[in-house]
Amino acid sequence: MDAPAHFPPGKITVDEIPVTHFFGPAVVIDVQAEAAKDADYRLRVTRVEKWEALHGHIPAGSIVLLRTGWGARWPDQTSYRNMDANGAMHFPGYSVEAAKLLMERGVVGLGIDTLSIDYGESKNFEVHRVDLPGGLFNLENLANLDELPEAGAFLIAAPIKLEGGSGGPCRVFAILPPK
Amino acid sequence: MDAPAHFPPGKITVDEIPVTHFFGPAVVIDVQAEAAKDADYRLRVTRVEKWEALHGHIPAGSIVLLRTGWGARWPDQTSYRNMDANGAMHFPGYSVEAAKLLMERGVVGLGIDTLSIDYGESKNFEVHRVDLPGGLFNLENLANLDELPEAGAFLIAAPIKLEGGSGGPCRVFAILPPK
Repeated sequence: MDAPAHFPPGKITVDEIPVTHFFGPAVVIDVQAEAAKDADYRLRVTRVEKWEALHGHIPAGSIVLLRTGWGARWPDQTSYRNMDANGAMHFPGYSVEAAKLLMERGVVGLGIDTLSIDYGESKNFEVHRVDLPGGLFNLENLANLDELPEAGAFLIAAPIKLEGGSGGPCRVFAILPPK
Repeated sequence: MDAPAHFPPGKITVDEIPVTHFFGPAVVIDVQAEAAKDADYRLRVTRVEKWEALHGHIPAGSIVLLRTGWGARWPDQTSYRNMDANGAMHFPGYSVEAAKLLMERGVVGLGIDTLSIDYGESKNFEVHRVDLPGGLFNLENLANLDELPEAGAFLIAAPIKLEGGSGGPCRVFAILPPK
């Protein structure tokens, strides 16, 4: 988990994040098809709108999980990082525009099954610079997102309470809806 | 959190503990009065029976939390460890007999607001040698037990998933019953 303090001017450290933010509906946005075609794919606003058309308005307090399919590459670091001859990584991520829309909805965290919520080629970590100063946390390298429905699961994100930490290891559980 | 493998012949490492064991009713046994009189106090079977007389049979799947009052000494290491002139620590803990009774009830973990589920003067860690090989986990140095009711709270214990770890850091949440 990245806490807001991971990217100043974000201020709140991992031990200061309100406990209520660790519990929320899981909004799973599936972009496996898009990412399979374009490893540099960034989540589009229209894709978020499509989720809402299917499942309703994203509720405040939600935790968004971007399912890119990258989790299936773990633990093979070569394909997970997907580095080109120039040393640039290629994996999908959020876009600043989509992150801003999700922040308008009042979500408390952004998660992903890759190394970073910013796409691999990012040099400036644009999404980190928007969402962390806005008080959100990030969950990166998430496992087993393929087991979650797009809507209806409930997430518990439990970071270790490191005093003054800008982030740290985190156990994440999903409670699935009744079948 | 101590996983069973922390004390062989306990075998299961922290990443192998069934996830369902991390969720359960919190059975809070308050021995602050006893521990205030005797720093070497060990939980008696009769005290467990008294809890059951008040709150009913301890349900299988529960996590037991021994509230000794020691949490109030934190972070003062001198009073928390309470070492005598011979270097022996003095703080309360479980007894083997009480641990065995709780294991008969099917509880999945033993927690405490001191440094160890074994009392401070223990040299052989008798309770560790009984409950961990029995498949239970231990939660030590718990905070804020004073905010829990003796019955009715629900516990979530979220250890970091360290591959092959005999234990590790753990975030613990209690969900309180409606007031």
